[in-house]
Amino acid sequence: MIDAAELNRWVTGFDQLYGLEFVSCGEEEVSARVRIDAQHRQPLGLVHGGVYMAMAESITTIATVLSVAAQGNTALGLSNNASFIRAVGDGTIHASAGRRHAGRSTWVWDVEMSDDDGRLCALSRTTIAVRPLHA
Amino acid sequence: MIDAAELNRWVTGFDQLYGLEFVSCGEEEVSARVRIDAQHRQPLGLVHGGVYMAMAESITTIATVLSVAAQGNTALGLSNNASFIRAVGDGTIHASAGRRHAGRSTWVWDVEMSDDDGRLCALSRTTIAVRPLHA
Amino acid sequence: MIDAAELNRWVTGFDQLYGLEFVSCGEEEVSARVRIDAQHRQPLGLVHGGVYMAMAESITTIATVLSVAAQGNTALGLSNNASFIRAVGDGTIHASAGRRHAGRSTWVWDVEMSDDDGRLCALSRTTIAVRPLHA
Amino acid sequence: MIDAAELNRWVTGFDQLYGLEFVSCGEEEVSARVRIDAQHRQPLGLVHGGVYMAMAESITTIATVLSVAAQGNTALGLSNNASFIRAVGDGTIHASAGRRHAGRSTWVWDVEMSDDDGRLCALSRTTIAVRPLHA
Repeated sequence: MIDAAELNRWVTGFDQLYGLEFVSCGEEEVSARVRIDAQHRQPLGLVHGGVYMAMAESITTIATVLSVAAQGNTALGLSNNASFIRAVGDGTIHASAGRRHAGRSTWVWDVEMSDDDGRLCALSRTTIAVRPLHA
Repeated sequence: MIDAAELNRWVTGFDQLYGLEFVSCGEEEVSARVRIDAQHRQPLGLVHGGVYMAMAESITTIATVLSVAAQGNTALGLSNNASFIRAVGDGTIHASAGRRHAGRSTWVWDVEMSDDDGRLCALSRTTIAVRPLHA
Repeated sequence: MIDAAELNRWVTGFDQLYGLEFVSCGEEEVSARVRIDAQHRQPLGLVHGGVYMAMAESITTIATVLSVAAQGNTALGLSNNASFIRAVGDGTIHASAGRRHAGRSTWVWDVEMSDDDGRLCALSRTTIAVRPLHA
Repeated sequence: MIDAAELNRWVTGFDQLYGLEFVSCGEEEVSARVRIDAQHRQPLGLVHGGVYMAMAESITTIATVLSVAAQGNTALGLSNNASFIRAVGDGTIHASAGRRHAGRSTWVWDVEMSDDDGRLCALSRTTIAVRPLHA
C-alpha cells in the first residue's frame, strides 16, 4: 500500500480542480473521496455525473500507472462505463475500486461510489490500456 | 433551436468550474465546447477523461430537460458509456450530440468529442431517464 | 430461492437454443450455466461473446421478472455492457449475478462468468427496466 | 468490399446456430441480418437481447479480422455495450456497423440494428482488440 501523502502528489490539474483526495492505494484496490460543495453540482442541485466518472477514471488509471511503472509501462483510460444509482446533493462521495483483471495490455476495474451513509450512488467499470512508456 | 446565451444560463456549479460553453441546442442535437488549459489535464499532461464525460453528461441531460419540461417532466442521467480514442493536451474540445431515441421513460444520445482539427477524441453514449417533475 | 426445475420452465426459444440451464435464483442473486460445444464457438474456436451476453441478459431479466411480478410489473432489458476477460474454448461457463440496485423503474445487476477452474472469463452489467405489466 | 458468399464461409458455430447472414463487408462498414423465428425469442415473445449482441459482436470482430490479417494480426472482442431501444417479435433484424476508430491495438465500431421498417431496435458499441496472430 502506498500512503495517502505520496498518492496525493498525483493530484494535479483536473483532479485538483474538483478536489480529489486519495485515501489508500494498492495493486488490487484503491480508494479516494471528494467533499461535495456547490462547485460539484449540476443545475438540479445534485452531484454532477461527471464528478463520479472523473473520480473513477483517475483512481483506476493512477493505480494502474503506479503498478505497471516497474516494468517500464504506463497506462491510459480506454473506456469508462458509469451507472448512476442514487442522486445526492451533499456530504462526501467515497470511491472504492477493486481490480478485476490485470492483463498484459488491459486492466479492468470496478468502482463503487457511496455517500456518507454507505448507500451506493454510482458504479463505474473502467478499462485501462497498458502501454510501453517510450512508445 | 435555443440560442447560446439562453443555454449558458444553465452553466452553473460543476459545469462552470470546468468551463462548459454551449454552442447550440435543439430537440435532437446539442453542441458545446471546453477550451483546454492546465486545469483540465491529468498527470501525463493530457485532457482528463472526466472532462469528456462531464461534457457528454451535461449537454445530453440539459437538452433532454429542456425538451421534456413542457410535459411537466424532468430528466436525470442513468448511464454514460465513454470510449477514449485519441489523447490530446491542448486546444478546444468540441462536443456534438445526436439523439438516438426519445422514449417515454428514457432518451438515448450519442456524443462525439473532437479536437480543433476535427479528429475524434472520445465517444460517449448516454441514457437519460425522463421522470415527472413532481415525483 | 426458486428451485432449478421451476426456473428451467423459463428456458424457451433462444435460451433453449444455446442451452441455458438455471442453477438457482433469489431476489438478489441468480446463477446459471452453459455446457460448451461446437455450436457455441466463433471462427477462432473460442466461446462466442454473444453466449456470455445472452446468459447475462437472460438470467438478470428473468430474475427481475420473477421478483416484480407480485406488484403487477414486468421487466425488459435496457442495456447490457460486457467486458471479455479470458478466452476459453471448452468446458462449462458458469454465470453468477448479484443485484446492485432495485429501484422503482430500473434494476442493476453485475454478472460474472467463469470457467470450470473459477477463472473470470467475462463481466456484464445489465440495467433492467421495470414496467407495469398492462402498459 | 468482400462478397456475401465469401463472407458467409465465416458463419460457423454459434453464428450458424442463430442464423447470421452477412450482406456486405468493407474495411469501414459491415452489414448482416437474422430472420426471426421462435428460436430467437425470450419468454415474452420478443427478440432476445443476446441475438442483437451476438450479431454486433460477430460482424465487427470478423470485419476487423479480415482487415488486419494482411499485417499478420488477428482480432478479438474486448467489450460490447448494447442499448435496447425497441422490442420486436417478428421479421428480420438488419445490422449495420460503421468503424469509428482503427488504432494499432484497438478498433471501435458502432452498430445499429433495425427492423424491416427501418426503426431502430438496438445500438451496440464494440471495442475489438488487435493482436499479433502468433502471440
